[in-house]
Amino acid sequence: MAATETLTAERILEATEEVLRRYGPAKATVVDVARVLGVSHGSVYRHFRTKAALREAVTERWLSRTETALAELTAAPDRPAPEKLHAWFAHLFEAKRHKAGDDPELFATYNVLIDENSGVVEQHIGVLIDQVRSIVAEGAREAEFAAPDPDATARALFDATSRFHDPAYAPEWRRPTIETEFEAVVGLLLRGLRA
Amino acid sequence: MAATETLTAERILEATEEVLRRYGPAKATVVDVARVLGVSHGSVYRHFRTKAALREAVTERWLSRTETALAELTAAPDRPAPEKLHAWFAHLFEAKRHKAGDDPELFATYNVLIDENSGVVEQHIGVLIDQVRSIVAEGAREAEFAAPDPDATARALFDATSRFHDPAYAPEWRRPTIETEFEAVVGLLLRGLRA
Repeated sequence: MAATETLTAERILEATEEVLRRYGPAKATVVDVARVLGVSHGSVYRHFRTKAALREAVTERWLSRTETALAELTAAPDRPAPEKLHAWFAHLFEAKRHKAGDDPELFATYNVLIDENSGVVEQHIGVLIDQVRSIVAEGAREAEFAAPDPDATARALFDATSRFHDPAYAPEWRRPTIETEFEAVVGLLLRGLRA
Repeated sequence: MAATETLTAERILEATEEVLRRYGPAKATVVDVARVLGVSHGSVYRHFRTKAALREAVTERWLSRTETALAELTAAPDRPAPEKLHAWFAHLFEAKRHKAGDDPELFATYNVLIDENSGVVEQHIGVLIDQVRSIVAEGAREAEFAAPDPDATARALFDATSRFHDPAYAPEWRRPTIETEFEAVVGLLLRGLRA
């Protein structure tokens, strides 16, 4: 049985994802997680001291998958910065849409954290903006972009594309015109960055 | 007494604003409005058949004040389009911030309508985007902007500035860096429009 394996934080997080997908953030409990693992809820609490801490950790892990995919895109060599920046925002939009549409229970958990002003969400946004800053700085070095202040520019790019990654807009992501609207905004921003 | 005056839709809407400011959208009732006017609630219902219709009408009136101020700005002659567009978005941001900060009960009413998917909100956004389109077209005519498609460009400008007018972001409008962030986004967009 599962209980004979060592109970690691990773195994608890996997089980929590499963439980959240099954019951949603409002109904999922630590007892459900313990049951899936075949352990006592006390064993779970030894790794995560509160339900909120567990919810934070599972969301952090879920968000870090998006961050990792985007980091690879950010680090890709020999790709013009304008093209890279376009691909980066398209990938972020696609990832968020996928999470909202195909993984609604974990998406709902993420929204609970947003409402709780959890540091996890702020940290996620910080990681993302830092990747944008890196692409902007690269483009400025290669004289592809005119961006005297890559930090402020990265923040502005992230803010100006909110409609295409902020979970508050998730209901609009199913509109048939959303792709065209995305291209119009990103196109305008890329023109604004031209050296 | 108030009841001796003719009961017009305009007087009902004024009284409704007053009642909404006093009690908020959750608690305000048509009976409260009738009491302020010194009439029966039946008299109010003769003008507005449901509480929802009254709420829509009062919000429409409240939003139309912003539309009128921005329309004047849009129609101003002899002002370069880039400057006009910057002033237009700055005014919109200021108006929304003012509504959220100084008129919280009517702002909450507006948010109720957003949640109800009321046509009033969509119409308001349509009027605003149409004003932006008119400034963009003017700039294109004067060769100040490169905007082959003023409709799509106006929509993109409105979408890219969501953070500075969408009520969902109201809690962030009190942040000390918000002005700088606004200028960074609008500056980038204006550079993107350059002919």
